[in-house]
Amino acid sequence: MNEETLRALLERVATGQEEIDQAMAALRTLPFEDIGFARLDHHRTLRWGFPEVVFCPGKTADQVAVIVQRLAQRSPRVLGTRASPEQFAAAQALTPDLQYHASARALWLEREPERPLKPGVLIAAAGTSDLPVAEEAALTLRLMGHAPHLVVDVGVAGLHRLLPHLPALQAAHVVIAVAGMEGALASVVGGLVACPVIALPTSVGYGASFGGLAALLAMLNSCASGIAVVNIDNGFGAGYMAATINELAYRGA
Amino acid sequence: MNEETLRALLERVATGQEEIDQAMAALRTLPFEDIGFARLDHHRTLRWGFPEVVFCPGKTADQVAVIVQRLAQRSPRVLGTRASPEQFAAAQALTPDLQYHASARALWLEREPERPLKPGVLIAAAGTSDLPVAEEAALTLRLMGHAPHLVVDVGVAGLHRLLPHLPALQAAHVVIAVAGMEGALASVVGGLVACPVIALPTSVGYGASFGGLAALLAMLNSCASGIAVVNIDNGFGAGYMAATINELAYRGA
Amino acid sequence: MNEETLRALLERVATGQEEIDQAMAALRTLPFEDIGFARLDHHRTLRWGFPEVVFCPGKTADQVAVIVQRLAQRSPRVLGTRASPEQFAAAQALTPDLQYHASARALWLEREPERPLKPGVLIAAAGTSDLPVAEEAALTLRLMGHAPHLVVDVGVAGLHRLLPHLPALQAAHVVIAVAGMEGALASVVGGLVACPVIALPTSVGYGASFGGLAALLAMLNSCASGIAVVNIDNGFGAGYMAATINELAYRGA
Amino acid sequence: MNEETLRALLERVATGQEEIDQAMAALRTLPFEDIGFARLDHHRTLRWGFPEVVFCPGKTADQVAVIVQRLAQRSPRVLGTRASPEQFAAAQALTPDLQYHASARALWLEREPERPLKPGVLIAAAGTSDLPVAEEAALTLRLMGHAPHLVVDVGVAGLHRLLPHLPALQAAHVVIAVAGMEGALASVVGGLVACPVIALPTSVGYGASFGGLAALLAMLNSCASGIAVVNIDNGFGAGYMAATINELAYRGA
Amino acid sequence: MNEETLRALLERVATGQEEIDQAMAALRTLPFEDIGFARLDHHRTLRWGFPEVVFCPGKTADQVAVIVQRLAQRSPRVLGTRASPEQFAAAQALTPDLQYHASARALWLEREPERPLKPGVLIAAAGTSDLPVAEEAALTLRLMGHAPHLVVDVGVAGLHRLLPHLPALQAAHVVIAVAGMEGALASVVGGLVACPVIALPTSVGYGASFGGLAALLAMLNSCASGIAVVNIDNGFGAGYMAATINELAYRGA
Amino acid sequence: MNEETLRALLERVATGQEEIDQAMAALRTLPFEDIGFARLDHHRTLRWGFPEVVFCPGKTADQVAVIVQRLAQRSPRVLGTRASPEQFAAAQALTPDLQYHASARALWLEREPERPLKPGVLIAAAGTSDLPVAEEAALTLRLMGHAPHLVVDVGVAGLHRLLPHLPALQAAHVVIAVAGMEGALASVVGGLVACPVIALPTSVGYGASFGGLAALLAMLNSCASGIAVVNIDNGFGAGYMAATINELAYRGA
Amino acid sequence: MNEETLRALLERVATGQEEIDQAMAALRTLPFEDIGFARLDHHRTLRWGFPEVVFCPGKTADQVAVIVQRLAQRSPRVLGTRASPEQFAAAQALTPDLQYHASARALWLEREPERPLKPGVLIAAAGTSDLPVAEEAALTLRLMGHAPHLVVDVGVAGLHRLLPHLPALQAAHVVIAVAGMEGALASVVGGLVACPVIALPTSVGYGASFGGLAALLAMLNSCASGIAVVNIDNGFGAGYMAATINELAYRGA
Amino acid sequence: MNEETLRALLERVATGQEEIDQAMAALRTLPFEDIGFARLDHHRTLRWGFPEVVFCPGKTADQVAVIVQRLAQRSPRVLGTRASPEQFAAAQALTPDLQYHASARALWLEREPERPLKPGVLIAAAGTSDLPVAEEAALTLRLMGHAPHLVVDVGVAGLHRLLPHLPALQAAHVVIAVAGMEGALASVVGGLVACPVIALPTSVGYGASFGGLAALLAMLNSCASGIAVVNIDNGFGAGYMAATINELAYRGA
Repeated sequence: MNEETLRALLERVATGQEEIDQAMAALRTLPFEDIGFARLDHHRTLRWGFPEVVFCPGKTADQVAVIVQRLAQRSPRVLGTRASPEQFAAAQALTPDLQYHASARALWLEREPERPLKPGVLIAAAGTSDLPVAEEAALTLRLMGHAPHLVVDVGVAGLHRLLPHLPALQAAHVVIAVAGMEGALASVVGGLVACPVIALPTSVGYGASFGGLAALLAMLNSCASGIAVVNIDNGFGAGYMAATINELAYRGA
Repeated sequence: MNEETLRALLERVATGQEEIDQAMAALRTLPFEDIGFARLDHHRTLRWGFPEVVFCPGKTADQVAVIVQRLAQRSPRVLGTRASPEQFAAAQALTPDLQYHASARALWLEREPERPLKPGVLIAAAGTSDLPVAEEAALTLRLMGHAPHLVVDVGVAGLHRLLPHLPALQAAHVVIAVAGMEGALASVVGGLVACPVIALPTSVGYGASFGGLAALLAMLNSCASGIAVVNIDNGFGAGYMAATINELAYRGA
Repeated sequence: MNEETLRALLERVATGQEEIDQAMAALRTLPFEDIGFARLDHHRTLRWGFPEVVFCPGKTADQVAVIVQRLAQRSPRVLGTRASPEQFAAAQALTPDLQYHASARALWLEREPERPLKPGVLIAAAGTSDLPVAEEAALTLRLMGHAPHLVVDVGVAGLHRLLPHLPALQAAHVVIAVAGMEGALASVVGGLVACPVIALPTSVGYGASFGGLAALLAMLNSCASGIAVVNIDNGFGAGYMAATINELAYRGA
Repeated sequence: MNEETLRALLERVATGQEEIDQAMAALRTLPFEDIGFARLDHHRTLRWGFPEVVFCPGKTADQVAVIVQRLAQRSPRVLGTRASPEQFAAAQALTPDLQYHASARALWLEREPERPLKPGVLIAAAGTSDLPVAEEAALTLRLMGHAPHLVVDVGVAGLHRLLPHLPALQAAHVVIAVAGMEGALASVVGGLVACPVIALPTSVGYGASFGGLAALLAMLNSCASGIAVVNIDNGFGAGYMAATINELAYRGA
Repeated sequence: MNEETLRALLERVATGQEEIDQAMAALRTLPFEDIGFARLDHHRTLRWGFPEVVFCPGKTADQVAVIVQRLAQRSPRVLGTRASPEQFAAAQALTPDLQYHASARALWLEREPERPLKPGVLIAAAGTSDLPVAEEAALTLRLMGHAPHLVVDVGVAGLHRLLPHLPALQAAHVVIAVAGMEGALASVVGGLVACPVIALPTSVGYGASFGGLAALLAMLNSCASGIAVVNIDNGFGAGYMAATINELAYRGA
Repeated sequence: MNEETLRALLERVATGQEEIDQAMAALRTLPFEDIGFARLDHHRTLRWGFPEVVFCPGKTADQVAVIVQRLAQRSPRVLGTRASPEQFAAAQALTPDLQYHASARALWLEREPERPLKPGVLIAAAGTSDLPVAEEAALTLRLMGHAPHLVVDVGVAGLHRLLPHLPALQAAHVVIAVAGMEGALASVVGGLVACPVIALPTSVGYGASFGGLAALLAMLNSCASGIAVVNIDNGFGAGYMAATINELAYRGA
Repeated sequence: MNEETLRALLERVATGQEEIDQAMAALRTLPFEDIGFARLDHHRTLRWGFPEVVFCPGKTADQVAVIVQRLAQRSPRVLGTRASPEQFAAAQALTPDLQYHASARALWLEREPERPLKPGVLIAAAGTSDLPVAEEAALTLRLMGHAPHLVVDVGVAGLHRLLPHLPALQAAHVVIAVAGMEGALASVVGGLVACPVIALPTSVGYGASFGGLAALLAMLNSCASGIAVVNIDNGFGAGYMAATINELAYRGA
Repeated sequence: MNEETLRALLERVATGQEEIDQAMAALRTLPFEDIGFARLDHHRTLRWGFPEVVFCPGKTADQVAVIVQRLAQRSPRVLGTRASPEQFAAAQALTPDLQYHASARALWLEREPERPLKPGVLIAAAGTSDLPVAEEAALTLRLMGHAPHLVVDVGVAGLHRLLPHLPALQAAHVVIAVAGMEGALASVVGGLVACPVIALPTSVGYGASFGGLAALLAMLNSCASGIAVVNIDNGFGAGYMAATINELAYRGA
C-alpha cells in the first residue's frame, strides 16, 4: 500500500464510500513496506546514492547476472562482492559496461565517473599481501562517493614506514587499518590518531593465524580506544562503515 | 621535552650557548612525546577534553588510587573501567569527589557537570540484562561530552518494541546496538538506519553463548551494512568509538 | 494506538473532523504494536494462555520483582528462569503467591492450578544429574497447559532401562531427550520413535564435555532423523518448543 | 523372527513339539528386530510412507547405486542426500526413473507424483545464497507428503521484505528459518509467530562465519522462544523435522 | 520378566492355560532387561564383581545417599566419583562403613578387603600435581579386583626418573600414563612398552593448557602406537578400561 | 654398541687390555639403543612379529619407496598408512609384491599369508561411509596376526540392526566402535559388553561435525565405562591398540 | 649406580671377582640416571646454579613444604611458582628463611643475596595490570643469576612511552615483551631490536581475550622476526628462557 | 632527515639562516626514520648481513619479482618464504642467479657462498614428514651466517634414535625441536639440554591434530624449562630466532 493507495482509502472513508470497520481491517494488514520502510529505503538511496550490494557466493552466474541487470536499471552504480570470473562474465553479457576488479574479486558499475568524491578516509594496509582486501574497501568507498587515500606496507615491525604518514593519519576523518597476522596495526594506528578507526583483519598469515582469527581477536582486544572491527577479509564492510562515518563530517550535526 | 624546552634548546643553539653536536645528541634522544606525540596528546585533550582511561583489573587498589589522583590533578574528568568497590574506596580516599557507578563497575569524576553535551548517539539495548554494559557506554559518552539517548528492552523477538523508536533511530548520527544471546539486534538496527552502527555484544545468555562469543560472531557476520563491532561487554570501547564518530558531525569536514 | 484510538481516528476522518493529510501522518508513525503486532501478542496469549517469560540473570532483584508484579497483574501465570534465591525473595515480597523451584532455579506463578493439562509430551532424561534441566522443561510445559511425562535415568549405556518405556515413547506426540556427557540419548530415542524429538544438551560431564559442548555437537550431528536441538541447559527452551508442537496435535490442521 | 515364526514357536510349545528349555533359549537370542523394532519400522513406513534416507558422502558410486536400487524395490520414494553427479549417474543406471536436484545435491525418486501433499510448512530463506539448502528441505518435505511454501530473500537487514509474508507466517503450522551469516532470521521469525520454528543455519558468509558456526551459535542462543536448531546446511534434517511436526496437525491428539 | 516368569509363561502355554495370542502380546512387550540385558548385567557382576558406579555431580546429597545405600545392599563394593564431602556425609549416615578418598574425591565401600587382587596394571603419573587423578584410577582398579603399581613424578623433562621404572613398565599388561601440561608422557611410555597404554590427560597446567585440552590433543595425536585416550581428569574411566584389559590376561582367549 | 661389542669391552677389561677409566668413559657415552632399547625393539619384533609402520603423508614417493624396501628386507610384513597412489607406485617398483588397499589408503606386504590369525577383535562400523576407516583397522589387525570380525551399518538410529550382533559382541575380547556424526555407537556398544571398547571417531558428517570433532568429543564423554578413544579417522591406531589387547588374552597373565 | 658403583663393578671384572655375563646383566639394567643423566643434571646445576623449580598447583601444602625443604638442603636457591599463601605458610614453617612474592604468587629462597647478577635482559610490560606476570619473570631471572631491567606501561597505544626506552632496548641481549589484550607490544618491540625477543602473553583483557588466547595468537603470528612465545601468564617460563639466552652472551661460543 | 640534514638544519639555526619557529616546525614533522629508525635498520644490516625477508603468499608473481630484484640490488642475500613455483619463475627472470628450494618452498639468493658460517645451532626433526619445515629453518640460518646441524627422525616414540645425538644436543648453543602430531620432542629435548630450545610445531598429523594446533599447544605447555615456541610450520621464524641467539654467543656480553 503506497501513499496513493493510503490516500485513496482515507478519501473513501471521508466520503463514506468505505466503512470504518473495513478500513480498519485493511490498515491492520497493510504491508509495512508501503507506509514506512519503503520510505526509509528511498531516503537512503537519495542521501547516499547507493543501492543494495550483491553478495555473490552461492548464487548461480545467471542469478547474479539478472540481479545486477535489474539494479543497473535503477541505479548508476552497482557493486557485487566475492564475484567469480564466471559470474562477472555472465553479468557483463547482460550489462556490457560492468567492470571487474580481479584482485578484489568485485564486479562494479560506475556510470557517473566524473562526480566529485569526498576525501577524509585513509586506508592503511600492513603489507602487500593485504592489498586485495584493502582494494575492496577502496572500491566500495569510491562507489559510495568517497576518495580514499591508500597507504600500503606500513606494518608495525617497521614503524619507520608508518610514521611518515602521521600527518595524513592525523588529518583523516576515519582510518581503516588493514592487517593480517597479528593485526597490531590497528592498535598502533589507534594510538596515533583521535578519529575513529575501523579495524579490518585479513586471513594473511602462517599456521596459527587460523584464517584470520588471530588478527580478528587481536583487533577486538586492542588496548587503544576508538576502534571497532569488521569481519575477516570484509573489505566491503569496512569501506561501507567508513563511508557512513565520513558522510557525517560533510552532513554536519 | 615540551614546546618551551624545545624552543629554549634552539635558542641556545641560535645564541651559541649550545654546541650543534650537543644539540644533535639531545634531539636524537629526546622522548618522542615531547616533540610529536605529546602534541598529539595535547591536541586530543584540547579537542576531546578527555584524558587517558584507567583499566582497573589486575591493578592493586593503591595503584588505581594513585593513578586516578594524578589524572584528576590534570583533568576535570576521569574514568576507570571494571573497577572493584575496593579500588573505588581506595581511590575516593585520595580523590573525595570521585563517584562510582555500581552496575557499570566504573569509577568516574566530572568536575564540570554543567557543560553542554552533544546529542546524536542512540544506545539501543536488547534486554534489561544488557543494561550494565549499556550504562558503561553511556557514562563514557557523557564524560566525553556527548548526550546519549538510551532505549532498553528492544530485542528482536518483539519487533513491536523496537519499531516505535524508528524515528529516533533514523535521526541519530550513530547507533550503539547492545545485545547478548544471538546478537541479532545489530542486524535489525543496521537494516533500519543509514548511519554507522556500533555493535556491542554482551555475555548475557544460556550455555552455548560461550560468554558472548555467539553474539560477537553474529555481529561480525551481520548481513546488514555499516556495522562494526567492539569486544564483548566492552561498553567503554563502544562509547568511545561512538564519541569519536559523533564528534565528526560537529567538527565538519 | 489501540483499536479504540484507531477507530476514533477513522471516525474523525469520516466526519470531517480530521484532515486526510493529518490522518496519513498519524498512520505513518503509529507504533506497529498497536495495529499489528499487539494483535499477534494478544492472539498468542489467548491461544497459549502464556505471557512473556522473564530471563533473570543480569537483572537486579528489584527489577525482577517489578517485572514479575506487572506480569502477574495481567496473567494468571508467570515464569522466571535462572532466578537466584535473592531474586525470588524480592519478587515474592511483591507477589506473595509466587513459588520457587529450587533445583530448576525457576520462579513461577500458577493461579489456575485446576485447569486441565494436555498430555502428549514425554521428557526422557539420561541421568539423575540431568534432572534439574529436565524439571525446568517440565515446569515450562505445565505452565503452558501441557502434562509432561518424565522418565529419568534412561541413559544409553543401559538400554534395558530405556526400552521398557518404548510404548510410552511411541505414543508421544513429541519427545524431549535430555542428556549431558556424549548426548547419545537423542540419537537412540530418535531411532525408536516417529514423532519429533527435541534434543536438550546439558552441561553434565567430565573435563572434555566443555560445559555441554560435546553433547550439543553430538545432538546436532545425530544420525537419526527428526531431531532438532536447543541451547545447553535450556530446559525452558525445550519445554516451550515442545508445547508449541503438542499444541498442534490439539488444534489440528 | 517375525510374527509367523514366533507364532509357530509358541504353537510348537503348545503342542509339546518344543521343549520349554529350548523355547526359552530361542526367545533369549531372538533378534529384537523381529519382535519389536521391525514392527516399529513397519509402523513408520505405513504412517509416513517414507523409507530410510541414503547419506551419500563416503560411499562409492556402486554402493549408492545398489542401496538405492534395493530401496526403490520396496518403496515408491527414495532420497539420497549430498550425492555427487557420479553417484547419481551410477544409481540412475540401475534405477532409470531416478532424478537429480543439482543445487540441493540430492538424488530422489517419486513414483506417485499425483498424491496430495499437506500444506502447513513455510520455509523462509534469508538470501538467494541460502537457496540450495532451502531446496533440500523443500524436496525432503515433498517426498514425505508435505507441500512447503518457500519464500526467499527475506533477510533481517530488510524487514520490509519479510513483513509482507506475515500472514503466511502466522498461518503456518511450522516454519523453517534458513540463514547463514549471523542467522538472525530465526529470532525475528520466532518473535512474529506462535508456531514452532526450526532454525537451519547455512555456511554462507565471510571469514568469521567459520563455515556456519556463527549462524549456528546465534540460532541456539535466540532470544525468541519456540526455536530449535538443526545442523549446518542440513536441509534434509530440517525438512524431516518439519514433516514430523506438520504431520501432528493432521493426525490430531 | 525374569527366567522364572518366562518359564511360567511358557508352561502356561504348554498346558493350554494361556492362549498363544496372549502369550505373543506378553512377549512383545516384555522388558528387555528381563530376557536379555539383565542376563548381561548379571554376567558382568558375576565376572567383574562390580556394580554400577555413581557419578555424583548434579545429584543432591540425599539422592546420592539413597543410591549408595541400595547398591550397598546388593554388592560388597560401591564407588561414587566426584563426590563432595557433603554427599559423602549424607551417604555415610545411611551406610556407616562407607569411606572417602579426599584427594580423589571418591566415596567407596569395600567389604571384602582381604580378597586377592590381580597385578598387571602400572600407573605412571608425570607429576605430583597429577596424583589425585592417578589415585582415582588406582582406587577404581582396586575395587575392581586389580592391584595397580603406581609410580609418580616421572615426567618427560627428566627421563632419568622414568627410565629406572623401565623393567616394571615392560612387565606390565597395561599402562596408564597420567599427565597434564603437554601430556608427552603417553608418547614416551608408548615408545618403551609393547603392551596397551591408556593415556589419561589431566587439567594441570598454565594458561594455554585450556583445562587439559592441550594434553588431551597431544595424547590423541601421539606418534607412538598402542595408545588410546580417556577424558580429561577421568581417573575412573582409565582405571575401568585398564581393569577390563588386565582381566583378559587372566581369563585367557 | 651391541652385545658383542659390550662383551668385547668387558673382556678387554677382564684381561687388562683396557683401563677401567677408559671403559667407564666408553660406557658413559654408549648409545642407549645398543644396550637397552635395541633389545626392547628386538623383543617387540619377536613377540608381535611386526616392524615399524610408515606414516606416508609429507614424505616424497622416493622416501617412502626406500623406507619400505629396507623394512621389507628385515620383515615379512610392512604397513604404510595414508599412502597416495603415487607413493605406492614408487614403492612397488622397488618391492614388487607390495599391495595397496585403495579405500583404506594403505600399502602393505604380507609374505606369510597362511599363518594362523587370532580371533577376538570385533569391529563395528556405524555406516557404510565409515567403512574405509574400519578397513584400515582391519588391515592393521591382520598384519599383526589377528582375525577381526567386521560388522557394518549398525548405527544407533536403528538398534534392530545392532542387536542381532549381540552374541558376537559379548563374545569378543575387544571391540572397536567406528562412527562419525554423533559417535553414539561407542556408548551403546559400551553398555552392551563387558570387554574393553576402543572408540574410533570418523570425519563423516554434516556441517557441525567439524571434521570429526563432534564424534571425538562424544566418545571421550561416553557415559558407558570401559571405553578409550583414538584419533579421528585413525584406523591404524585403533587396530594396533586392539591387537595389543587381544594379544594379552593369548599370552595370559 | 653412581660413579663409585660403576668403578667397583669394573674393578670386580678386572680382578675376576665378577663374571662378564653377570656384569653385562648389571650394565644392561643400570638406571640411566646414574651413568648419564645425573651427570647432565650435575652439569646443569654447576653451570646455572639453579635446581629444579616447584610447580605448586595441585600439590598439598605439606607436599610443597617437604619438597622445598629438600631442595633447600641441596641448593642455596629455591623457586616455587603459583604458590598459594597456605602453601607458603606450610613451607616457611620448615624453611624459615623462605620468602613470598605475593603478586607473582612465588615462594623463593636466596641464600647468597650478594652474588653479582648479569645484566642483559630487558623486560617490557605493556601495562600495570601485566606487572604480576612480569615480576614472576624478573624473580626467576634474579634467582638464576641475572639482573633484569624492568620497564612498565609501555603499551603500543602510546608509542611515546615506549620509544624513550629505545636505547635500552637496543642494548639488551634479550627482551621479554609482556602484554595482554592484543599483545601487539611483541611485534613493535620485535621491529625495533635485533636481539631475540621472548613474547609473554598475559590473561589481562576484556571478554574476547579468552583468557589470554588473543594475545597468544597475536604473538605467534607476529609480523616481526626473531620472536618466540611462551605460555599465557608463564612469567617463570619467559624468565628461564631469557636466562639461558643471556647466559650464552657470557659463556661465548 | 639523516644526520647531515639535521646537522645542516642546526647550523642554519646557529647562523641565523633559519628562524627558530621554522626549525621547530621542521623538527616536529621530520620522519622518525631519519633520525633514529633508519640508523637502526642500517645497524641491523651491518651486523647481521641480512635484509628484509619477503613473505610471498597473497602477492602477485610480478610483485614478488620486483621486490626481490630491488633487494638483490642492495644485498648479496635474499630470502622469500612460501613462494610458489610461479613466483619463483617470475623472480628468476629478473634475478637469474636466484635459487629455489622446492620442499621448503623458499626462493633464495646467496652471492657469497664461501663466507664462513657459525656453528652452534642444532635442528632436531621428529620425522621425515617434518623435513620440509626443518629445511626452511636450516636455509634461513645459512643465509644469516650460521651452520645448522640437522638430525632427522628422532621422534620420542623411539628414544633410542634421539639419545645417540645427546652429545651434539648438549654441545649446542641453541636447539630447534621440530615436530608435528603431539609435539613431545620439544619437552624431551628440553629435559636433556641446558641451552635455549625453540619449539617449532608442524601441521603433520591425523585428524585431531587440527592443522598443528595439537603440537602447538603441547609445546606451549611443555613441562620442561627453557622452551619458547614459534608459529605452526614457521621454519623461517624458528631459524631467525635461533640465529639471533647463536649470534649472542659470538658477540659476547
